[in-house]
Amino acid sequence: MPTLTSSQLLSLSTSLLKAAGASDEEARIVSKYLVNANLAGVDSHGVLRLAGYVDGIRSGLIKPGAKVEIVTETGSTALVNGNWGFGQVIGTKAMQLAIQKAKKNGVSVVGIFNCNHVGRLSEYTTMALEHGMISFVAVSADPCVAPYGGRQAVLSTSPMSYAIPAGQEQPIVVDFATSVVAEGKIRAAILKGSKIPEGWIVNSAGRSTTDPADLYEEPVEPFKFSGALLPAGGHKGYSLSLIVEALGGALTGNGCDGEVTSGFANGVFILVVKIENFVPLASFKSRIDRLIKSVKSTPTAEGFNEILIPGEPERREEKKRSQAGIPIPDNAWDALRKTCRDYGLDAESFMQT
Amino acid sequence: MPTLTSSQLLSLSTSLLKAAGASDEEARIVSKYLVNANLAGVDSHGVLRLAGYVDGIRSGLIKPGAKVEIVTETGSTALVNGNWGFGQVIGTKAMQLAIQKAKKNGVSVVGIFNCNHVGRLSEYTTMALEHGMISFVAVSADPCVAPYGGRQAVLSTSPMSYAIPAGQEQPIVVDFATSVVAEGKIRAAILKGSKIPEGWIVNSAGRSTTDPADLYEEPVEPFKFSGALLPAGGHKGYSLSLIVEALGGALTGNGCDGEVTSGFANGVFILVVKIENFVPLASFKSRIDRLIKSVKSTPTAEGFNEILIPGEPERREEKKRSQAGIPIPDNAWDALRKTCRDYGLDAESFMQT
Repeated sequence: MPTLTSSQLLSLSTSLLKAAGASDEEARIVSKYLVNANLAGVDSHGVLRLAGYVDGIRSGLIKPGAKVEIVTETGSTALVNGNWGFGQVIGTKAMQLAIQKAKKNGVSVVGIFNCNHVGRLSEYTTMALEHGMISFVAVSADPCVAPYGGRQAVLSTSPMSYAIPAGQEQPIVVDFATSVVAEGKIRAAILKGSKIPEGWIVNSAGRSTTDPADLYEEPVEPFKFSGALLPAGGHKGYSLSLIVEALGGALTGNGCDGEVTSGFANGVFILVVKIENFVPLASFKSRIDRLIKSVKSTPTAEGFNEILIPGEPERREEKKRSQAGIPIPDNAWDALRKTCRDYGLDAESFMQT
Repeated sequence: MPTLTSSQLLSLSTSLLKAAGASDEEARIVSKYLVNANLAGVDSHGVLRLAGYVDGIRSGLIKPGAKVEIVTETGSTALVNGNWGFGQVIGTKAMQLAIQKAKKNGVSVVGIFNCNHVGRLSEYTTMALEHGMISFVAVSADPCVAPYGGRQAVLSTSPMSYAIPAGQEQPIVVDFATSVVAEGKIRAAILKGSKIPEGWIVNSAGRSTTDPADLYEEPVEPFKFSGALLPAGGHKGYSLSLIVEALGGALTGNGCDGEVTSGFANGVFILVVKIENFVPLASFKSRIDRLIKSVKSTPTAEGFNEILIPGEPERREEKKRSQAGIPIPDNAWDALRKTCRDYGLDAESFMQT
């Protein structure tokens, strides 16, 4: 299993995306977010996505150079047509727009449709932190989760992220799927050749299984579903998933359920709230600091050594991997090398840079 | 166990609250919401709260006649000081304000502080449905939930509600605590004299227990905590709870964690989004109808006979209890009779009206 530094991986990813047709800016933004995910230990949203993205460009699903277009707009709201460009580029521009609007009007909601995979959502929510804002992003995508009590995929993993600024403490950064796990974790398990725990998925017959490949008709791109992921916490995760479908799918016009047929299509809901419209920022931050300290100093339950704040595990992994490098599982590396070869690039050569 | 019709219960509740000092309007709104909760089968938020509310008036925590005051306001945002009036009255006025603002500006956020128990949150979110709006309400209250991995109560049950309008179908109405269960369910179990399932709470020693009384120093008003409720779905419910504390507690200035010492204090966050700022309302509604139909027609998993949409179980119970009446557990009825007697009212007499 090769280990690359983040700058080696960035260089590899940027070169590959540019060779496949992305502009400098597109390749830079997409690569940064993928490598950030790897650094944070969220390999499911890291460079293992590259082969799929390149396939998406080839098949015309991802359109490099697409214009991010504001379809309708008021002081506090906007609807953005991504015109099927790179999700990361569209998401970044839409979040910048939402921050501008919240700066002027205290709160903003921006919806996105015709958008490809935006990746890890905390990339966007954390953008609002330095502006003294709270933000929330939720995404509706292709169906892969069964409703509570069901056995067929009609809901997406409906991920959501919140970021809350703190003062002396690190910010609270929540980023999770409303399914038991994100689909990427199943793909990562396939690439690692490992089993998954009971309760994550059901197979096409509606039975629990520990073989990650059972989620798909075939465990390779385009990863077509035959089984289904299960919602987190039963009816609560299921309820949240329905809400995310409504916000990301119906409100944006991107579509819910069977309407979304491309595995890359993301309907995105963005909410940004400017704290100073309500209370002084310093008082907000000191309350959050106090909350974090209080939570972290809670006596632990059996089986726990410490209480973690959302975002903390990822920051720890980032620190570790910034020094030790990012390990890439052999079959993910093989897929990457193969995709690179298609464009006359030698993946190995980036390990010497 | 006596059974009362909703109008008998409304009449009883209104008379009692007025006798205890509430105005006509206050008594009417509070009673309507309490009885609605009973009708929906959510007894934890029904008339069993009356004794506590009356105690609150006596002790000065709940101030009948308090003015609902807008402290700071822009086109899309407002912060509301409830001046410790009835939570239901403050919540209703704040939601009306949020709807007005969203009507003009497409989206609004309203925060509330100095507010008593607002009750069942779906009362507020469903108000926005007829205006073609999506709404979200979240509440920070007194600490009674342990963080994931902890064993002391530092977070509130951090309930949240979403309401999504549909077309031909009934709306999607989500209303849940981010803890495994709402605190009211523990109180209801005490009143019924029943055990609770494993995994809902830990006692003061941090051990799992099935005795609901173990949550409190004494299982009577003011229900002071010694144990803790557990977060739903481990780290996911815990993460959502932290966000609700930030939105309802820190953003409103109401306070998080140890700052909130009154068991009635609710810090409330309200978000309202006008659908037509994004897509035509009819197209939104038909997408939601389609989503609901698709979810409900999913083949069921083992142990399930049908798939329910959030809000559906409550509507069914409402239909049933509208006809059959509302059963009141004996000790809840005894407490109610006693409180009535304090004000020269005969609870039994309302059963003959």
